[in-house]
Amino acid sequence: MRTSAVPVSRAPAQAPVHDSALTLRFMLAAHRRELQGMGELAQTCELVITVGRLVHALQKERGQAMLHLTLVAVRPADVRSTWAAQVDVAEAAEQALRQQLDDGLAAEAWPLTKPRCLHAVAHALHGLDGLPALRAQLRQARLTADQALDGYGRCIGSLLGVSIEALEGAADPVITHLLVALLNFMQAKELCGQERAHGVRGFAAGAFDDAHRRLMAGLVQAQERSIELFCQHAPAALLARWQALRADELALQRLRALSQGTQPQAPAFAPIWFDVCTARIDAMHELERELALHLAACCRERVTETTQALASLNQASRQYHELSIDRKTAVAYTLVGRPLDAAVNGDAMGDAMARSVLDVLLEQGVRLHEADQALAQARRAQVERRRIEQAKWRLVSQHGLSEAAAHEQLLRMAMNAGMTLLDVAERVLRDPGEA
Amino acid sequence: MRTSAVPVSRAPAQAPVHDSALTLRFMLAAHRRELQGMGELAQTCELVITVGRLVHALQKERGQAMLHLTLVAVRPADVRSTWAAQVDVAEAAEQALRQQLDDGLAAEAWPLTKPRCLHAVAHALHGLDGLPALRAQLRQARLTADQALDGYGRCIGSLLGVSIEALEGAADPVITHLLVALLNFMQAKELCGQERAHGVRGFAAGAFDDAHRRLMAGLVQAQERSIELFCQHAPAALLARWQALRADELALQRLRALSQGTQPQAPAFAPIWFDVCTARIDAMHELERELALHLAACCRERVTETTQALASLNQASRQYHELSIDRKTAVAYTLVGRPLDAAVNGDAMGDAMARSVLDVLLEQGVRLHEADQALAQARRAQVERRRIEQAKWRLVSQHGLSEAAAHEQLLRMAMNAGMTLLDVAERVLRDPGEA
Repeated sequence: MRTSAVPVSRAPAQAPVHDSALTLRFMLAAHRRELQGMGELAQTCELVITVGRLVHALQKERGQAMLHLTLVAVRPADVRSTWAAQVDVAEAAEQALRQQLDDGLAAEAWPLTKPRCLHAVAHALHGLDGLPALRAQLRQARLTADQALDGYGRCIGSLLGVSIEALEGAADPVITHLLVALLNFMQAKELCGQERAHGVRGFAAGAFDDAHRRLMAGLVQAQERSIELFCQHAPAALLARWQALRADELALQRLRALSQGTQPQAPAFAPIWFDVCTARIDAMHELERELALHLAACCRERVTETTQALASLNQASRQYHELSIDRKTAVAYTLVGRPLDAAVNGDAMGDAMARSVLDVLLEQGVRLHEADQALAQARRAQVERRRIEQAKWRLVSQHGLSEAAAHEQLLRMAMNAGMTLLDVAERVLRDPGEA
Repeated sequence: MRTSAVPVSRAPAQAPVHDSALTLRFMLAAHRRELQGMGELAQTCELVITVGRLVHALQKERGQAMLHLTLVAVRPADVRSTWAAQVDVAEAAEQALRQQLDDGLAAEAWPLTKPRCLHAVAHALHGLDGLPALRAQLRQARLTADQALDGYGRCIGSLLGVSIEALEGAADPVITHLLVALLNFMQAKELCGQERAHGVRGFAAGAFDDAHRRLMAGLVQAQERSIELFCQHAPAALLARWQALRADELALQRLRALSQGTQPQAPAFAPIWFDVCTARIDAMHELERELALHLAACCRERVTETTQALASLNQASRQYHELSIDRKTAVAYTLVGRPLDAAVNGDAMGDAMARSVLDVLLEQGVRLHEADQALAQARRAQVERRRIEQAKWRLVSQHGLSEAAAHEQLLRMAMNAGMTLLDVAERVLRDPGEA
């Protein structure tokens, strides 16, 4: 049996008493880095707004391309010139984005230093590189409506991917809520854009078949889901704006009801439908831009706040170094445990702590974690949607189905197999012999 | 009606023909940054190994503290000196970690530039700052076993949090699998450590009551879940090592069976149980270290591979600039669409592409996404576990329950309310009047 001669007093000699100085330094460093991240996010909003402008232009160009392709026999000059003018708008927006990307890459500006974001940009640029060819074929009417929808849809999807990757990684819960609101709103807007394009096609053709009707209804449902998430996370002012906008949807509802009916439609409804949808989507674009500006403003506000808090914390930390070591440990616990905003008031040093330090730190962690979850969900929804789109277009190209019929087939496969739409899509994409 | 006079030929004048040069530059930049990230991750492994060493020392110290607290009447000198020697080991490991952190912060070395990681380190340091006080109370036996378990558990949990945050953000799917394996293994090892500490307590007390038995069984189950995930993601060599280790668990199984029985136990089983568990956990520590080294080696390997691929891509990109513009576009698509490993062979320029560029890019994206999901899951499990622990200790302090009884109560509340354990924990933590 060993003795207790291993002296208890030996321990302190081997291990110096830590006066929490390192803990404080890490707290300060964490806040400093968060500050930096917030500034970077404000900068990211500029890129997101430029991307949003191009997405908006391409969404409209897609809708007009549908008019162009389907109404060309009825009034060719009109629809062709409107589409051509919109192509100019989109090309100008693309040029502005390319310029910004070019400058940002050369300057190694955030977010163009994140691998995922760079990857997403390369992906989106690759899509944009293919647009001239798509447009040339459209001019010569050598494209089906499905092919045009596919081309535009991929391009827009990859641009939305850039925004998602660019905005990823904010460390602040308030900011993360705004991000989730913004990402879901962008998603809802693209679903509205798809509804517009498919609707133009149906009205111009004079009828919606079963599959097409279900596709339209599905787009409305998906919009609602994204909007619901936007509403959960959006700031009150923008939420009110959205509700005002929503109050004015009577014409849209009437036309939607027509599209769900089985009677033949007058092709003249097509440009009316286009205009009604466009007015709504334009208003959404404005709201999206404001949301992005609001996000940038919040980031800058948080930078100011945090800078002040950091200055106070730095000062407290200097005062701390002048204390005796016993007092140091007690004070450090008070400082560390206090949420940053409470630490700024002058008398922070002596206060007793009501809540445990770890409670505060853990709660922060869990709040961050919850916000992360919402963000991850928004991102996942985007990836899943792209994946389902891809599977749909594979069915179109392999079996010569229409888009609506392919969509229908995916739904039926999912129902019969009791699988999710995503699982079915993955199966289709894995095994080309499937379906 | 407008005319079609908006000349179709105007568009190209406004929008220059893009020769895909920007797309290529972003592809190259993305690969360069991925390379950098891989190097940083290799560096992170060193920190994770140092943290793991301290965690291991504290896990053992916790187990010995249980022997110290519970067997002190039986053979005081022996258990006290063993525990004190282990304190020395832990303090040396802590000192090494503090030094590495101090140096890393000063040098702004990865991962000590990520806000989340800095936050996690501050949190962990704060826990370590409290260890001397905990040990002083233990020396004077002024601590209950529950309080000691709580103190060590929080400290170890926050250190595991550092490893999780440090390892977050790898961009490569192979690497991410290794990360998921490592994180789950660390989690499993901590659950084994808890089982050891709780078991010591039960054997030393001479009996396990109902709640204590269920707690022990729950820890075994939770280990199995983490180990299952480790097995899904681990490389074959380490998996074989684990299975070999596992084959040697007969003594552990016998003692576990005893702990699940209702008969009184001889307190002499306590140190035997401690030794059997410790042999296993020591072997797990070695495996964990190897897994981290394997991860670092894989990162370095990927850096070498990617550097070579990047050099070839750079060369191809230089050749590309000497081509005519028509040929440029065609070649760029080939380059961009090719997965990086295929792009290195010399004849990449002329090859036709079998798969579409977007398919390749999207598949990469989805693979990344799946790996991310697994990583997020490992991380979520960790946060949830901490949250449930916290709720348990709140019940202990508020209602004077034993740890096992508090755990039992959480389980019963979850069952009665049909809620998850996490939801119940959140409710307890939100409302102190609850339960």
